[in-house]
Amino acid sequence: MASKLIAIVAGVGPGTGASVARKFAATYPVVLLARNPDNFNDLAKEINSSGGKAIGISTDISDSGSVKSAVEAIKKEFGSDVGAAAAIFNASGGFLRKPFLEVPEEVFSKSLDVSAKGGFLFSQATLPLLLKGVEQKSKYPPSLIFTGATASVKSNAMMASFATGKWALRALSQSLAREFGPQGIHVSHAIIDGVIDIPRTKEWLKDMGPEAKLSADGIANDYWWLHTQPRTNFTWEIDLRPAVEKW
Amino acid sequence: MASKLIAIVAGVGPGTGASVARKFAATYPVVLLARNPDNFNDLAKEINSSGGKAIGISTDISDSGSVKSAVEAIKKEFGSDVGAAAAIFNASGGFLRKPFLEVPEEVFSKSLDVSAKGGFLFSQATLPLLLKGVEQKSKYPPSLIFTGATASVKSNAMMASFATGKWALRALSQSLAREFGPQGIHVSHAIIDGVIDIPRTKEWLKDMGPEAKLSADGIANDYWWLHTQPRTNFTWEIDLRPAVEKW
Amino acid sequence: MASKLIAIVAGVGPGTGASVARKFAATYPVVLLARNPDNFNDLAKEINSSGGKAIGISTDISDSGSVKSAVEAIKKEFGSDVGAAAAIFNASGGFLRKPFLEVPEEVFSKSLDVSAKGGFLFSQATLPLLLKGVEQKSKYPPSLIFTGATASVKSNAMMASFATGKWALRALSQSLAREFGPQGIHVSHAIIDGVIDIPRTKEWLKDMGPEAKLSADGIANDYWWLHTQPRTNFTWEIDLRPAVEKW
Amino acid sequence: MASKLIAIVAGVGPGTGASVARKFAATYPVVLLARNPDNFNDLAKEINSSGGKAIGISTDISDSGSVKSAVEAIKKEFGSDVGAAAAIFNASGGFLRKPFLEVPEEVFSKSLDVSAKGGFLFSQATLPLLLKGVEQKSKYPPSLIFTGATASVKSNAMMASFATGKWALRALSQSLAREFGPQGIHVSHAIIDGVIDIPRTKEWLKDMGPEAKLSADGIANDYWWLHTQPRTNFTWEIDLRPAVEKW
Repeated sequence: MASKLIAIVAGVGPGTGASVARKFAATYPVVLLARNPDNFNDLAKEINSSGGKAIGISTDISDSGSVKSAVEAIKKEFGSDVGAAAAIFNASGGFLRKPFLEVPEEVFSKSLDVSAKGGFLFSQATLPLLLKGVEQKSKYPPSLIFTGATASVKSNAMMASFATGKWALRALSQSLAREFGPQGIHVSHAIIDGVIDIPRTKEWLKDMGPEAKLSADGIANDYWWLHTQPRTNFTWEIDLRPAVEKW
Repeated sequence: MASKLIAIVAGVGPGTGASVARKFAATYPVVLLARNPDNFNDLAKEINSSGGKAIGISTDISDSGSVKSAVEAIKKEFGSDVGAAAAIFNASGGFLRKPFLEVPEEVFSKSLDVSAKGGFLFSQATLPLLLKGVEQKSKYPPSLIFTGATASVKSNAMMASFATGKWALRALSQSLAREFGPQGIHVSHAIIDGVIDIPRTKEWLKDMGPEAKLSADGIANDYWWLHTQPRTNFTWEIDLRPAVEKW
Repeated sequence: MASKLIAIVAGVGPGTGASVARKFAATYPVVLLARNPDNFNDLAKEINSSGGKAIGISTDISDSGSVKSAVEAIKKEFGSDVGAAAAIFNASGGFLRKPFLEVPEEVFSKSLDVSAKGGFLFSQATLPLLLKGVEQKSKYPPSLIFTGATASVKSNAMMASFATGKWALRALSQSLAREFGPQGIHVSHAIIDGVIDIPRTKEWLKDMGPEAKLSADGIANDYWWLHTQPRTNFTWEIDLRPAVEKW
Repeated sequence: MASKLIAIVAGVGPGTGASVARKFAATYPVVLLARNPDNFNDLAKEINSSGGKAIGISTDISDSGSVKSAVEAIKKEFGSDVGAAAAIFNASGGFLRKPFLEVPEEVFSKSLDVSAKGGFLFSQATLPLLLKGVEQKSKYPPSLIFTGATASVKSNAMMASFATGKWALRALSQSLAREFGPQGIHVSHAIIDGVIDIPRTKEWLKDMGPEAKLSADGIANDYWWLHTQPRTNFTWEIDLRPAVEKW
């Protein structure tokens, strides 16, 4: 195994993205992608000051030029033949729960741009690096992991703008799992079916007890578990929810 | 029932679109939408000369301005308070079966633009007319029908660009079915799981006999059946395939 | 087409079974199967006195001996080379919504016995007759239709005993569709997702208006529509629910 | 945490069952259930002689009397208030890939008896013990894990007898996950989508390389991972297949 293998996380924020970055930073140098540097600056500092290595790159994941620049910045930092052990797509266009006829085209398009086109651009950018990880005989099969949601498998009323992007992303992950599994890359999709416990959701579901929300660190553990599965035992999809969740 | 109720078909070509238009033209004036007028000119003539009424409007279904113009043209022709009995979305961005890393961004985006954004724009344009159909007490519940494919439920290797758009369209249809069913509109999704028998596919599957391909007229019959279901018995999804199809 | 083709309906009660029998009796002599003759006696009389032909046979669909006797009675009535145009499985073991640890083994087993083993026995008994229908060039492809429920695709808390049987029945129908489709038999599965409007449910959902329940005659119409699909356009599965249903 | 928590494995053979038993035996005393003692005798000896504790109990999982006797034997061995940390259902009625009309009733019934009724009896027998594990504040949430197969989600031609049982078992696991999750028990279902590498399959898929089959020890690792998930992050379902598997 070469020493250069990195992990790349797109969609780093205060929740899942940060937890995943910390988890993978224990083993790999990590690249943090987010549009707004405020979303990765503190985290990069934290990782770098605690013995890990992290760089943040301001990136609009739905823009091919911006994604191309990010790859160039990665190669400048880690060498042009850098390989990746893991790439995690955690970006999301957000959602607007509104009657369908009141959803502006921009909102609908943004969800597709981030979830579907963003997922496409991220995959085209990272798969060549993951294939290098295979060549370089990474300890664990290089992993490409996509974060999904309840809306990845159920499209409720007034959720069309969010669900269309999420269903498209799930389709992308399934196709890639089938194409790149035989090439040694482990592609997975996680259905996060519940509220994640982050600062923004502090007041939510309070009456349901302290375990009514998903732990972001727990999600990171599960992504790491997916990453360590051997080639003989690949999981494409997991669902994740609190024990008390109604589903 | 007012006399003005119309049917609108987007994605009129030599196959399903034309058959659906002919079928619904037996009962309603039909509006034919396609980018290229060659795709509807002959059909409009055929319908108009055989006792029906049809107008074709050149429309780029993935462009909001073009869709807006189409609605204006419809209102100019049929009156500003025109209602619709049926709207059928049959457009598709086509597909390119290629290794993922060789799929150009334009191809990926086009599939999403037509299937996902096109489905969104078509729905936002036609739902107000379908709601008028409800007000005007149409004989059959106004119907919004989406044409899907095998790739709407299965995302195979090298099919990511097509499947992402089709999964997004299915998500759209499911959300709309849940939101607009209680408002009296019947939203359906048809999984066309096989090759449709059209001029372009004449030579395909010849060794499997004359019934190895789906009949476009048969699909139109099935869409009509969906249209005639009463409010007590709505079907959201059907699959359709030749008896000999492997699935 | 020979004149002998019959339709066989298992699980005739006051709801779907009776409506289906009436619908198919307009075209075919019908055989009515139910354990309790009270469930078919009046219906048989009604059909026979209004120009159709019906016989009822008391049958325990979960018992192979009883099913065998039913087939013998059918052959005695219609000739040993009788073919079938349609066989509809509408039986169900009922359900008990109870905490899992309070469900008696007999209740759990009965659901499996009727839905799963009953479906198996009915299929083995009727498929040879349906294959004769193919040989005899029936006007419509001989049909084997199974009645499912919400619990065929969703297994809720306290519904295990019902859902296990229904999921098994759906699996049976999918396997048979794949095996017998190429032999010319149309196998379908209908997910009835809502309350059916029958005498027993008269008081249910009253506050939701007159269209909150499925029409049994509507279901029968849909089964007839499935039956008339040509070999080029087979539907395996439909869902059916009232427009106002939450799902 | 009390010291008494045990793990119970039903369907111990030379593959998954044995690997799972070994894995859980590193932490818990294990109870091995199989009809034929040859399937657990050596394994029990191996575990007992390497520092663990195991007892084997000859049990017909489809027979309520036999399952009841097994529970009594467990309580005799570990005390009447024994709790369980894990219960793993790995039994299967086997399958016969044959044209449907050639499948004997006994074969069809056996699959249902083991997969569906066996799953029911095993769950009713072990859930009270798992609930005791919750009371006794087990380190990890008590787990009830079911082994599924490709045929749990796809019912192919000539696979009806196997698939009906497997779909029923999946329905059972989903219902139990919904009912017992809020009570602190983690119910999971694993779709094993490929050939497991066991002595009996030594010669299979040889031309596809050494990683074309699932590792039974890998499956056991994945079950252990499921077991260690905290209450905030429960996975109901995972799929597992070799990287090179076509699906």
